[in-house]
Amino acid sequence: MTLTRQLARYAVESRFEALPQAVQHEAARAFLNWVGVTLGGSAEDASRIAARFVASEGATPVSSVIGHGFRTSIASAAFVNCIASSVLAYDDAHLPTVAHPSGPAAAAVFALAQARAVSGAEFLNALALGIEVQCRVANMLSLPPAPMNPKFYVNGFSGPIGVAAAVGRLIRLDEQQMRWAIGTAASQASGFRAAHGTMNSHFRPGSSTRAGVVAALMAEMGFDCIENALEVDGGFIDVYAPGSDPEMALAGLGEHHEMLANRYKAYPCGIVVPPTIDACREIRARIPAGAAIARVELAVNPLVLTLTGKREPRTTIEAGISVYHWAAAALLCDQLGLDTPEAACVADPAIAELRGRIEAEARPDLGKGEAMAKVTLADGTVLESHVIHARGSLERPLTDGELNTKFADLARVRLGHDAAEALREMCWQVGDLADVGGEIGVLLP
Amino acid sequence: MTLTRQLARYAVESRFEALPQAVQHEAARAFLNWVGVTLGGSAEDASRIAARFVASEGATPVSSVIGHGFRTSIASAAFVNCIASSVLAYDDAHLPTVAHPSGPAAAAVFALAQARAVSGAEFLNALALGIEVQCRVANMLSLPPAPMNPKFYVNGFSGPIGVAAAVGRLIRLDEQQMRWAIGTAASQASGFRAAHGTMNSHFRPGSSTRAGVVAALMAEMGFDCIENALEVDGGFIDVYAPGSDPEMALAGLGEHHEMLANRYKAYPCGIVVPPTIDACREIRARIPAGAAIARVELAVNPLVLTLTGKREPRTTIEAGISVYHWAAAALLCDQLGLDTPEAACVADPAIAELRGRIEAEARPDLGKGEAMAKVTLADGTVLESHVIHARGSLERPLTDGELNTKFADLARVRLGHDAAEALREMCWQVGDLADVGGEIGVLLP
Repeated sequence: MTLTRQLARYAVESRFEALPQAVQHEAARAFLNWVGVTLGGSAEDASRIAARFVASEGATPVSSVIGHGFRTSIASAAFVNCIASSVLAYDDAHLPTVAHPSGPAAAAVFALAQARAVSGAEFLNALALGIEVQCRVANMLSLPPAPMNPKFYVNGFSGPIGVAAAVGRLIRLDEQQMRWAIGTAASQASGFRAAHGTMNSHFRPGSSTRAGVVAALMAEMGFDCIENALEVDGGFIDVYAPGSDPEMALAGLGEHHEMLANRYKAYPCGIVVPPTIDACREIRARIPAGAAIARVELAVNPLVLTLTGKREPRTTIEAGISVYHWAAAALLCDQLGLDTPEAACVADPAIAELRGRIEAEARPDLGKGEAMAKVTLADGTVLESHVIHARGSLERPLTDGELNTKFADLARVRLGHDAAEALREMCWQVGDLADVGGEIGVLLP
Repeated sequence: MTLTRQLARYAVESRFEALPQAVQHEAARAFLNWVGVTLGGSAEDASRIAARFVASEGATPVSSVIGHGFRTSIASAAFVNCIASSVLAYDDAHLPTVAHPSGPAAAAVFALAQARAVSGAEFLNALALGIEVQCRVANMLSLPPAPMNPKFYVNGFSGPIGVAAAVGRLIRLDEQQMRWAIGTAASQASGFRAAHGTMNSHFRPGSSTRAGVVAALMAEMGFDCIENALEVDGGFIDVYAPGSDPEMALAGLGEHHEMLANRYKAYPCGIVVPPTIDACREIRARIPAGAAIARVELAVNPLVLTLTGKREPRTTIEAGISVYHWAAAALLCDQLGLDTPEAACVADPAIAELRGRIEAEARPDLGKGEAMAKVTLADGTVLESHVIHARGSLERPLTDGELNTKFADLARVRLGHDAAEALREMCWQVGDLADVGGEIGVLLP
């Protein structure tokens, strides 16, 4: 047996009914989170340009360009929707590899489900499969014994393969076709991290999902490839991550579900900021009504200040990665979410004033997922909090209720309250639908 | 100045009138050769499936899917036509790097020229530019001091960048947009050689041209990237070919034209077979009418027998890479070309009989581009030939007349004689056309 064959066989034989209930439920959570971040991101510039580009090409109208009110081809819809789901940096993270697997997988399987009748069980099975294969390939590439050059953008390498498996399963490729699809997907693996912070960094997941969709649909038509592209001499692993151990992608396949290590982000902020937010949030809950804050002291891992140490952000992007801004907002605002890094919040005089009074100490003895906050009130009361695991971490995943709140915050960018509620309910019920694309498609803007 | 900026500036400022006459003429030759191999390859399975796939997506009908009688988007037409131009392995070769630059460049600029009015001068300038940038990037990646892993498929890395430059020039990107386009193109670089021999090996150039087209068209709409993607830490060179010298892509830019080292293949055969064909061809011209061949002795570099030493081919693909089959056909057939590896020729009793009597000696003292043939006739006459440089080599490029013959052989796959002649004449006149896409588009099947 070989890696390509074993992944292909697992994909071809995968069944929703065989998945543990936790995995079934996690796939629904991934879908709900993906629909939310896609709606929320659909108004951003990168998404608008991508939508305009695919509109300029034209297509038989099949799959929704979410938030833009038109349909296009499966591959183009997956491309744009995946960009939209990525652009707020609010999507998901597979923490061991810092990959974001649900965007490419969900964008592809949803676009496909609008082209052919797909039941809820088939849909969630394919989505779980696409995430699982991506997490496993990313582990194989990124972790010891032979970690890939970290300057490669790992989603661009794991994404096409996982998407090909997911779409290939939905269109019922046989094992040989699935091996071709995985090969053609792997031959499109690409991307480096240096362009992070530009629109290109969102093009990458969009391009990954497109690559996997095309690989699967062309394999169905008979477009062939070698059958062992991942592990053959001179193939995928050999050129991109020589020395990687195929067994890392295969160990416990069907028993251990690596997709359960995927988590949804709790805030649209830099990945090291949430522990500080949570510490400030805990303290805020204990501040008596009307009490004034005299002093704020934070203690964080040194990396936090290196990555997010800008005290006076001027733009949304700077605010999203300012630990000072988030700490001040966490202490003063009723709600945190999409609005927090926006102009009105950034310019709010109370928040700006408090930002200027926060002291942050770099403490090498604190972990990257850890933070301490100490607030002294005007009357001398001292309130302290020490967060070991932030919301959205592996140890403290968002609850279903927290996902609902996040969804509501995101969906309002494109939908009114009632329409957002209806869509959210339908997303939770996705596993029971007879025709996922038809029943959910009509609810999308 | 940086590599990305210098390439972008060169592209933005490039003008047909500034090119030496030899480069202008070579661009027209590249286009004629490309139209021929695209027509000839359009009937092959890989091309048919690709055409069927893009037809299934639908599109505003703009650019011709050559040989298939329909139009699609710029990017999809470039994708399919580039696959067709590659599939016969009869296209071109930049010998220092074994890259095939004219397929991605010509497929992209021609598809673009059908979408917007492009003059012949603009067209040939962009085509020469696209080939030039690919050759230079391929040299930088493939040659010392730090040659890239040869298992990477070099066209997949040089192709998107050259195509982005060519298309970007035609749509008049400014320097900043051109830098974004080059970056987004580079971020799609991909491909390994292990899939050679399957349809996937033709998907690769098709995907390269698509990548460059999309990068340029999206940059025009404002989709940004970092402006120094090629040379930045963690960027293109750093992740794929660390240590490569950017100066190799820049030396003599505008004065030395590396695209003149690109050559068109003389026969649809393995790259080491032509010297033997030419030696047998020279002898055939000297065989008196009616004389019978008693013995054939070949002497070739050992690599020739390693790569192409199958004496009794059974399929078209095997015949294309059998030095015995090609030698026998070269001695017996009036014409050599697309038909030579086909079933009727492979099964021809006279050719099969002669194949069985050819002796080939591996001679390490002969170069890979060299071959000797010795034919003994029934009356004892001995005819000998020693070829140092085969047709289609750097030293002995195809003449314009030989390109015409090759074109006629290829065009007949999809066009009758008169239509092929008319198309050929229009291709030679491409530099004088006011609207390349309009005037040539109507002549395409």
